[in-house]
Amino acid sequence: MKVNEKLDALRGFMKERNFSAYIIPTDDFHGSEYVGEYFKAREFMSGFTGSAGVLVVLLESAALWTDGRYFIQAAEQLKDSPVTLMRSGQPGVPTVAEYLQEHLEEKSVIGFDGRTVTDRFVQTIAKKTDAKYIAFDGSEDLVDLVWTERPPISTEPVWEVDVKYIGQSREEKLKCVREKMRDEKADVLLLTALDEIAWLTNLRGNDVQYTPVFMAYMLLTLDKAQLFIHEQILSDEIRHKLTQAGITTAPYDGIEQAVRDIADGSRVWSDSGNVNYRLQHSIPEKTEVIDKHSPIELMKAVKTKQETDCIRTAHVKDGVAVTRFMHWLKTNVDQEKITEMSAAAKLETFRAHEEGYLGPSFESIIAYGAHGAIVHYEPTEQTDVEIVSGGLCLADTGGHYREGTTDVTRTFAIGKVSEEEKKYYTLVLRGHLALGAARFPKGVCGQNLDVLARCPLWEAGVDYNHGTGHGVGFILNVHEGPQRFHWRISEQTQCVPLEEGMVISNEPGIYLEGRFGIRHENLVLCRKQEETEYGQFMYLEPLTMVPFDRDAIVPELMSDRELKWLNDYHRKVYETLSPYFAGEELAWLREVTAELN
Amino acid sequence: MKVNEKLDALRGFMKERNFSAYIIPTDDFHGSEYVGEYFKAREFMSGFTGSAGVLVVLLESAALWTDGRYFIQAAEQLKDSPVTLMRSGQPGVPTVAEYLQEHLEEKSVIGFDGRTVTDRFVQTIAKKTDAKYIAFDGSEDLVDLVWTERPPISTEPVWEVDVKYIGQSREEKLKCVREKMRDEKADVLLLTALDEIAWLTNLRGNDVQYTPVFMAYMLLTLDKAQLFIHEQILSDEIRHKLTQAGITTAPYDGIEQAVRDIADGSRVWSDSGNVNYRLQHSIPEKTEVIDKHSPIELMKAVKTKQETDCIRTAHVKDGVAVTRFMHWLKTNVDQEKITEMSAAAKLETFRAHEEGYLGPSFESIIAYGAHGAIVHYEPTEQTDVEIVSGGLCLADTGGHYREGTTDVTRTFAIGKVSEEEKKYYTLVLRGHLALGAARFPKGVCGQNLDVLARCPLWEAGVDYNHGTGHGVGFILNVHEGPQRFHWRISEQTQCVPLEEGMVISNEPGIYLEGRFGIRHENLVLCRKQEETEYGQFMYLEPLTMVPFDRDAIVPELMSDRELKWLNDYHRKVYETLSPYFAGEELAWLREVTAELN
Repeated sequence: MKVNEKLDALRGFMKERNFSAYIIPTDDFHGSEYVGEYFKAREFMSGFTGSAGVLVVLLESAALWTDGRYFIQAAEQLKDSPVTLMRSGQPGVPTVAEYLQEHLEEKSVIGFDGRTVTDRFVQTIAKKTDAKYIAFDGSEDLVDLVWTERPPISTEPVWEVDVKYIGQSREEKLKCVREKMRDEKADVLLLTALDEIAWLTNLRGNDVQYTPVFMAYMLLTLDKAQLFIHEQILSDEIRHKLTQAGITTAPYDGIEQAVRDIADGSRVWSDSGNVNYRLQHSIPEKTEVIDKHSPIELMKAVKTKQETDCIRTAHVKDGVAVTRFMHWLKTNVDQEKITEMSAAAKLETFRAHEEGYLGPSFESIIAYGAHGAIVHYEPTEQTDVEIVSGGLCLADTGGHYREGTTDVTRTFAIGKVSEEEKKYYTLVLRGHLALGAARFPKGVCGQNLDVLARCPLWEAGVDYNHGTGHGVGFILNVHEGPQRFHWRISEQTQCVPLEEGMVISNEPGIYLEGRFGIRHENLVLCRKQEETEYGQFMYLEPLTMVPFDRDAIVPELMSDRELKWLNDYHRKVYETLSPYFAGEELAWLREVTAELN
Repeated sequence: MKVNEKLDALRGFMKERNFSAYIIPTDDFHGSEYVGEYFKAREFMSGFTGSAGVLVVLLESAALWTDGRYFIQAAEQLKDSPVTLMRSGQPGVPTVAEYLQEHLEEKSVIGFDGRTVTDRFVQTIAKKTDAKYIAFDGSEDLVDLVWTERPPISTEPVWEVDVKYIGQSREEKLKCVREKMRDEKADVLLLTALDEIAWLTNLRGNDVQYTPVFMAYMLLTLDKAQLFIHEQILSDEIRHKLTQAGITTAPYDGIEQAVRDIADGSRVWSDSGNVNYRLQHSIPEKTEVIDKHSPIELMKAVKTKQETDCIRTAHVKDGVAVTRFMHWLKTNVDQEKITEMSAAAKLETFRAHEEGYLGPSFESIIAYGAHGAIVHYEPTEQTDVEIVSGGLCLADTGGHYREGTTDVTRTFAIGKVSEEEKKYYTLVLRGHLALGAARFPKGVCGQNLDVLARCPLWEAGVDYNHGTGHGVGFILNVHEGPQRFHWRISEQTQCVPLEEGMVISNEPGIYLEGRFGIRHENLVLCRKQEETEYGQFMYLEPLTMVPFDRDAIVPELMSDRELKWLNDYHRKVYETLSPYFAGEELAWLREVTAELN
């Protein structure tokens, strides 16, 4: 079925229900960034495969919104389709709400699957379309009627993370969460984010692509904890342990009724920016809703000592794998045929060789030449190209290990690269090093520090259209909040101080469309440094242990301080990785991490 | 009358009214930063003379809150009084609300003059003391009963700024404000900030210390504009011009009744963070209040082309005066007796020599040696010391000119200074230069850029307990918003993008209690640079034209880029000021602005 046939089929169902518009977002029922196959309705309907986007289907037209990471990819994938690409945030581009306000007539009805959008998202549209008396209907999943060969919802078995890796039992975590509930005078806490439920229960699963979580909801009171889950995915042993911790189980689909059954007069903590529209609207009217971020978001972001110890181990393993890949790629190119996809497969074998490797933490990006400028390029059989001398190859990949989650980007010089490529490589590296070297008093947020990575680029009149860094979960989502590096502050922006134990990425880049792309990414751990009379100072410990490619660095463009930062890092990389290398590989490692002047 | 006698007298009146607490803030009825003599009730009652602070009097005790700028000064001024100093924001120090919550019994009554606090301030206390059923009474000014020799409210004559300096007539400004009212569907706009009223009417006055504004309120509708003012301060000519612009006048005290008379069903724009409690509570209940920042705040911050042209002229005049002062101070010290106060008087004569000088824009800070560490030190006859060789002298001063308002800080090496003083001088200068050299895309806020000034200090484990920069009015308040440089972002923080035409200070510092203080301050003008495919880039043009004292600079501690920034600035200072100097002074200017390597 082609995209226009699918859209027409959907429009038939829309007309029967008198819908003038149907919204198909990317989310599953839990607001996950990556979703299981069952939930790829937007991809199925539009053909756009990126991890973020909203499709709006009207009776005569259709449009897809996505962000700067995907502008080039989306333009490519939509170019022969009737779907118009909307580049979110670009001058003159309307928001979804503005678009609907403009295109719909008075008293139209907008349909959507109320489990795949948040109440806040619907409110944004409602506010904008206020004057037109638009109605909303979130009761039905119309894509399901078009998608006849839809895969089933995943029900993979759940497994347990040993508390020795985590340092905190589920009983202790429940206690902490309930303390936060008491602080807010909440009687009930509704949890729907899959990583929060996995964090709280110390369990993991395999229901979502690239993310070891399982499909579930939780409803907490001060003395009860109910886990709504496909019960067949729990072993008797795990179920027993949950019971011991005071967690009872109920069927996954039972959550809606359970929410409807919340006692009148309760104070219900439910984040309208995360909980889905249908569940939020199932909360009885005679309750009081506390509409705040779940308390788990921040607790989960601050890793325990046991977790950070493990995470360092995971990064040594990952550093060995990626550095071995770097050596292999740079020495074998032009000797054998290497393509983006075969290189990705090779890197996967290096990672798989490491003990405790669980799988990739997101779709590998191996992007050669002009593909590097497509921020979230993922090579497919249609786009795959050979990697040959004379260009840059950007590799943004990551893995889940028993000890934690990694995410690393290196850009490799393949053979001889141009002076311009080297200049930009060095420029981005200067920003990366400056942010990595930041030292700051407690209280400072990622929003304050972001400019350190961008200043060298801004000085040259260039920029990148994405954040500089995101939090990373512990064997959970590779992208998590609440901390981030980005200068943009809106009314909705949560600005949280960087705290000891937070893991965050540092990944500035530059993208010259049709030519090349460069990104340098380390994960860093926020740590306490000394306390002076001016406050508790903090610094960022690098976790990622992979050399930057000196073949593309121009030391003359770097200040003495920047060179010192780079040499210090490379020394640490050598010290950390050298025990795992030998012979020619070890000699090479010594060479690529040697001091630059 | 001593402080404890005044407090006891006040307590007598409190008891008669059954008040358990009485709050005496610093504000006048308009939320002004500096206030006329009539309004210095907190200073009268506590003896603390700083420009910020809240005094809370209980029946058995009293406490005064002030911020980091005044910790040292307040400790000094309160040391023999029964008033406890509360250092706002320091660990373990309660807020006013927390203090009242702790100290008051259930069902107590808190009194205050409702014209001197905002509704938002009272709400903060009400929220915290919620569980104790505290009542609030803002109907009476009890200090007035104690303060028998209180000066009268100022009623100085109003004068007009020629539109050629401003580029926008009051008619045009009214039109713009009414457009904003229409955008918000507001029927009425209540204006109480004195600088906003002066800006809107293109008038100035002399009712508030250091600020050429006049006492007034305004009530705007879409077709009427009422100015509530002591009518004797308006000349017939100005009154006529106001009438022509559609502005009618009414007595100053008539505002309260006029607000009570607002028609039911109106949408009333009134900023609860600025409008006083009593006026806010005079708005009839059957109206809808739009509680947002006044639209004038941002309009006023973005200077017109005519204003920026004038401002540059004002800064050349001010640069001549301050540079002449620098030459005089550095060459005459140890030759004649110079004290902090006599130096301030001398600088005032240099400024007064400039055509169009109107007076200081705030109390001059000339702080020698250890006094420099008191952030807002103002020399008095009790503290005045002689300035002699072998120390740093911090001079933070500013003026109003017919062409605009200035604010400049330089720290001068008096004779030979220590290596440590030079090291810190250079450190702060590096931060100042880095922020001044910032280049950034449109959309970036002061909150993002602040770290550029602090990073060199943070790296050394030091910091300063104040913002890095504030907006500056056009012959108005020397401190204005909404733009600012500060990394702190709270839920209340307005983060506004820096726009072409905004004037803002760049003033990092360092303060070693009991030893010395250093601050380097330029005003800068935000301007558009080139537009690239990555956006409209902006830069900061320095307005202040005064050399930094090379006698305290250690070039070896600066990077090549930092030295280039300094040399570029000094070259511009020389080019700008040299036409106004001759002979020995000119030779000196050439020397102190010569290239450093």
